[in-house]
Amino acid sequence: MQKLAERNWGMWLGTNCQLDFELEVPTPLVLMLRPRSGAFQWVARESYTLAPHVPVEEYTDIFGNLCQRLVTRVGNFTIATSAEVMTPECFDFGWGAPFVNVQFLPDSVLTFLLPSRYCESDRFGDLAQEIVGGCLPGYNQVAAIASWVRSRVPYVPGSSFMPISALEVKDQGQGVCRDLAHLAIALCRSISIPARLVVGYLQGLTPMDLHAWFEAYVGGRWYTFDPTQEENFGGRVAIAYGRDAADVSIFHQFGPGIRLSNMQVSVALLQKPSA
Amino acid sequence: MQKLAERNWGMWLGTNCQLDFELEVPTPLVLMLRPRSGAFQWVARESYTLAPHVPVEEYTDIFGNLCQRLVTRVGNFTIATSAEVMTPECFDFGWGAPFVNVQFLPDSVLTFLLPSRYCESDRFGDLAQEIVGGCLPGYNQVAAIASWVRSRVPYVPGSSFMPISALEVKDQGQGVCRDLAHLAIALCRSISIPARLVVGYLQGLTPMDLHAWFEAYVGGRWYTFDPTQEENFGGRVAIAYGRDAADVSIFHQFGPGIRLSNMQVSVALLQKPSA
Amino acid sequence: MQKLAERNWGMWLGTNCQLDFELEVPTPLVLMLRPRSGAFQWVARESYTLAPHVPVEEYTDIFGNLCQRLVTRVGNFTIATSAEVMTPECFDFGWGAPFVNVQFLPDSVLTFLLPSRYCESDRFGDLAQEIVGGCLPGYNQVAAIASWVRSRVPYVPGSSFMPISALEVKDQGQGVCRDLAHLAIALCRSISIPARLVVGYLQGLTPMDLHAWFEAYVGGRWYTFDPTQEENFGGRVAIAYGRDAADVSIFHQFGPGIRLSNMQVSVALLQKPSA
Amino acid sequence: MQKLAERNWGMWLGTNCQLDFELEVPTPLVLMLRPRSGAFQWVARESYTLAPHVPVEEYTDIFGNLCQRLVTRVGNFTIATSAEVMTPECFDFGWGAPFVNVQFLPDSVLTFLLPSRYCESDRFGDLAQEIVGGCLPGYNQVAAIASWVRSRVPYVPGSSFMPISALEVKDQGQGVCRDLAHLAIALCRSISIPARLVVGYLQGLTPMDLHAWFEAYVGGRWYTFDPTQEENFGGRVAIAYGRDAADVSIFHQFGPGIRLSNMQVSVALLQKPSA
Repeated sequence: MQKLAERNWGMWLGTNCQLDFELEVPTPLVLMLRPRSGAFQWVARESYTLAPHVPVEEYTDIFGNLCQRLVTRVGNFTIATSAEVMTPECFDFGWGAPFVNVQFLPDSVLTFLLPSRYCESDRFGDLAQEIVGGCLPGYNQVAAIASWVRSRVPYVPGSSFMPISALEVKDQGQGVCRDLAHLAIALCRSISIPARLVVGYLQGLTPMDLHAWFEAYVGGRWYTFDPTQEENFGGRVAIAYGRDAADVSIFHQFGPGIRLSNMQVSVALLQKPSA
Repeated sequence: MQKLAERNWGMWLGTNCQLDFELEVPTPLVLMLRPRSGAFQWVARESYTLAPHVPVEEYTDIFGNLCQRLVTRVGNFTIATSAEVMTPECFDFGWGAPFVNVQFLPDSVLTFLLPSRYCESDRFGDLAQEIVGGCLPGYNQVAAIASWVRSRVPYVPGSSFMPISALEVKDQGQGVCRDLAHLAIALCRSISIPARLVVGYLQGLTPMDLHAWFEAYVGGRWYTFDPTQEENFGGRVAIAYGRDAADVSIFHQFGPGIRLSNMQVSVALLQKPSA
Repeated sequence: MQKLAERNWGMWLGTNCQLDFELEVPTPLVLMLRPRSGAFQWVARESYTLAPHVPVEEYTDIFGNLCQRLVTRVGNFTIATSAEVMTPECFDFGWGAPFVNVQFLPDSVLTFLLPSRYCESDRFGDLAQEIVGGCLPGYNQVAAIASWVRSRVPYVPGSSFMPISALEVKDQGQGVCRDLAHLAIALCRSISIPARLVVGYLQGLTPMDLHAWFEAYVGGRWYTFDPTQEENFGGRVAIAYGRDAADVSIFHQFGPGIRLSNMQVSVALLQKPSA
Repeated sequence: MQKLAERNWGMWLGTNCQLDFELEVPTPLVLMLRPRSGAFQWVARESYTLAPHVPVEEYTDIFGNLCQRLVTRVGNFTIATSAEVMTPECFDFGWGAPFVNVQFLPDSVLTFLLPSRYCESDRFGDLAQEIVGGCLPGYNQVAAIASWVRSRVPYVPGSSFMPISALEVKDQGQGVCRDLAHLAIALCRSISIPARLVVGYLQGLTPMDLHAWFEAYVGGRWYTFDPTQEENFGGRVAIAYGRDAADVSIFHQFGPGIRLSNMQVSVALLQKPSA
């Protein structure tokens, strides 16, 4: 909590996400749409409604995300969520924060060193070494990786729907926010720096949508990096954490008969939480 | 999820709990005031505000409760929470649900067989045997215990502030809701029936306050029992689960300089969640 | 525990695994070499020695595996483990065990539905549908997948060292035990059947080595399948479970300066555990 | 792992514990007899046999202990365990290690601040303040508590079988190792210092038996204290950790028809683990 006390908590964000589905058959869904209060953000107000209302269960996954399980009915189905969240005005920089030798990493962080579905870190060692050559081991290496991805792989919002893997992103040479994050994560892990994907809201994103970025573990803590944004502008609300997009899916459907007909996302700066 | 589908989910409750503190020195608090969505209730809308706002962290304890940690400032400090929750209209009965032999209990349930701070189940074997004599092992035994407590230990709201233990409750011969639940839990565990304390809201409680009841594990699931209520009336919103009041404290303060000057609780029946 | 009581527990296996390393620089290792007692096997005797002895820590990962962390010294380094384990004489068959709809899967099983590093289940839907066409949903589908892999992808022990992914295995048309398991797992998950990789010992394997197979969740429990073995012969000792080989690595090294100079594995049938 | 590297790991202990039971009816047992490798000890060799062998399951409880569940048969039943464990030659002292304010404790440590079945820390505030008056907050306070218990409450091995609580220990004025540990733990928690019970082996204990001591969390780590031993002599092997004896029971029986007819414990200093 020490860091909490020192942190600037002055910013309130109001977030909204609405998903409209059309369903031909009842379909099981697993959702991750509920931001958690934690060390970095405080959810002061929240709503989460289903229309029509169906039975829904919530559980916590292995990464600590709150997940909702339900079975939709045939017809139109709408999920509407909103939240008012206190968050730091910008993320912390950690220039010079040192590389943590594997033997000193917390047990729970080790899983974020392993290759995963969309981050084939076992195939990126040479490229990563080339990118970080000469950097101080740790934060500066991750910053070099984020910067390399930002400059070499154009961020093209809306350019893909299905997740593709870091190797495919590199070949394709462009991608959505998730793709760029996957590539950066694979590069970090290939030099033994733990990295994880974050899905959430970014204030001021254009066009507005859900966003994905990543965190890397250096200097004894997680730091935020965004390979799609030139500057550290805007507050962020994290919804879910995982190894990559396979773990962190805003909605995961099981079965073919479902169509997302509309999705609306908004983020507003609030003076304070509503009374 | 099978039970979910069959359950009556028709009731929406709006809950409020406000705590006003006066503080002479900054004091660490651990709070459990955030109801979780789960298998038995759905939190559609929620607010949780601190005035003045201070940094706060949330974590999940070993029983799955969402806990908030913070350090108050000197002066007045108010915590206000509200929620709109869908919940069954009344709890399930399970007459005849059988006793589960210890070897067939899920691992995670075993901890609720052990004696705990306020439930000295290692001292209640004889009394429990006497109470349940002749009952079908399982649900009917628990119902006999709840009924025995209800008839022998008058429920006197407001009669104690500090938790006392089941042995002390038996000697004292009366108690608050928490005391009666502790006594019933100790009796259940002494005959190898897992039992746990629940703290939450009960619609229609007079006088209105936070409430405590218990659950017992028979017939392969948890069933609700309330040793203070003659009839199964009113919806319930669970806030926290634990072995006894030592695990489940709405607010747990560390240090002397804090005074709860006011506490207000309300539960309202809603037509539907607010728009 | 019900199944335990009915299970044939008559077989004792003695297992040995020795790893000899040559190290140019001190290197962090994470090991998974300690079989756990659980519902399916009982470890009656075990040894685990390091020569030279170095400080080592053990922790439990998110899949319940016991993992050992250490930093080797320069020079020769040997890890020797042995165990005497009671295990069923052969694994259970479950012909007809039904498919479990996603909404009825336990929360903890959901993670084994997701694509993972070496099991790109998001790319195998069409092939899987073709393979299982006409099968009763559930166990019989998994058996058809295991059989298809066994007949179409020759098992060539020693043909690869680095893990390759299910897509690569399919292209390559042959593989080691791990490769065939990855392909089968990807096919299962693509039709919403949870599947996980198991690494362990198989009595009678030729040539003797550590082995990999998989389990699928149908009919309310995990069943064992082995796409490399024509018949269900021989007892098995599981060492570790995971989504794929990225999670389950007998030894995971961090850094370049390490060479496995020798590895010896043996499995013997015992009359009883040694006195 | 940093402390590991610096720690003296020179001592090997060989431990044995044999329990002989006589059973009139089949009885479920939960056992904690398997020491875990962890940050402070390495189990190089271990055996755990049941005679007659019965099906047994192992699981990990909420405190990380490995627990074994089984149902005994009628007649004689013997459990024999042995281990060869590398352990520090003596425990660390931490004179001057500071009190950790509650807001800076790790989440997982908070549970060890709460009152528990045999440690009614909510009733010991005044006595604790009196004992620690004038001590530097932290390690020195705990040492004062351990010393006070040692000098005021004579350690009488074998003086009780059933656990009694800290309040009862204080009244009774003497106790077994577990009783003295409970009293010290209650005193520590009452001044907001987390404390937990440890059950294990102590080399050189007279008369030889299983032993209980406690750990307190100060200066950012757990430190070992033993209110029954005048000097820090002898190596220790921890078997299980918990809030008090209710969590940590070497064997926990459910039902009346079981008699422990014999128990034998030994601890030997080894030159090295057996080949």
